[in-house]
Amino acid sequence: MLRGDITVAIRTAVMNELAEVGYGRLSIEAVARRAGVGKTAIYRRWSNKLEMVLEIISDVAERKVPLPDTGSFAGDLELLMMIVSRALQHRIASQIIPDLMAEAARNPQIAETLQRALRTHQQAVGEKLVGQAVARGELPEDTDADLAVDLILGPLYWRLAVARQPLGDDDLEKLAAAVTAALRASSD
Amino acid sequence: MLRGDITVAIRTAVMNELAEVGYGRLSIEAVARRAGVGKTAIYRRWSNKLEMVLEIISDVAERKVPLPDTGSFAGDLELLMMIVSRALQHRIASQIIPDLMAEAARNPQIAETLQRALRTHQQAVGEKLVGQAVARGELPEDTDADLAVDLILGPLYWRLAVARQPLGDDDLEKLAAAVTAALRASSD
Repeated sequence: MLRGDITVAIRTAVMNELAEVGYGRLSIEAVARRAGVGKTAIYRRWSNKLEMVLEIISDVAERKVPLPDTGSFAGDLELLMMIVSRALQHRIASQIIPDLMAEAARNPQIAETLQRALRTHQQAVGEKLVGQAVARGELPEDTDADLAVDLILGPLYWRLAVARQPLGDDDLEKLAAAVTAALRASSD
Repeated sequence: MLRGDITVAIRTAVMNELAEVGYGRLSIEAVARRAGVGKTAIYRRWSNKLEMVLEIISDVAERKVPLPDTGSFAGDLELLMMIVSRALQHRIASQIIPDLMAEAARNPQIAETLQRALRTHQQAVGEKLVGQAVARGELPEDTDADLAVDLILGPLYWRLAVARQPLGDDDLEKLAAAVTAALRASSD
């Protein structure tokens, strides 16, 4: 395998092991076996399990989500919600996210990595999506971006990652309409 | 100790151990030590760790939350949000909830217990709070109770349990107003 291919194989193996056994039970041995590489290939890249997981998770979690610009806030919102709901229902994400959140309650470095990734996404949603809508005159100038982010991401996260209930056919459309109404009213 | 006192001591010890070390690392020995009882006192009540944790968690999680009836939907909503935000910020809850959610991804019995408790609370919020508001004519007859629950609990859970950002002084009031506007509009 080429050097780049080995790194990709290790990253994929780490994500799959995290999903299957969780951070606590993840071992360098199992990752090496799954990736089809020797343990030295791993120790050449990272000095321990925490460092390896932190780097791979930050890379994945901070990857830029292409934020939509459909020309209207309603359109942007529905598209963003569709992207987020797909991500939350992804098999790997739906197992890794709760596990890392639990580890974060005990491990400050994992907590810091997750918080940093989350802040990046929250800011992107707050500044770009809400900013565009304010610029178009669709939302009031004084729209509270933090409240907007809670209203946009919270209900989806609750439904899909906490209650783990599927979304019905027109649920995203209804949710987007409700959130738009909430944001218009909240700054009156 | 009296029999009832022993049970209370064990329950308290289990909750504290769950918060400190998590389900995976929790041991009957540590619970017995913490409760100041012998291991036999525990095995007389439950045959194993899973059974013990499931019973104690169901008891706590399904405990009825006294749902407010302040006379108006805005008042009910703000009071409910205050109760939920206190609960989510409680030291024990904020450590136990993510841990059990992570275990639930791998243990169907824990998943079932959490889902049952959640359904009880979701139904209470949907039927009582939203039902009262519909009966008073404050919300339309065809208000979607599931959507209402997602909008009421989702943003709070996101802010406090995922993003782990504190609520500002008037955030609950703003959130309650936003959710009310969303629900009024969503059924138009």
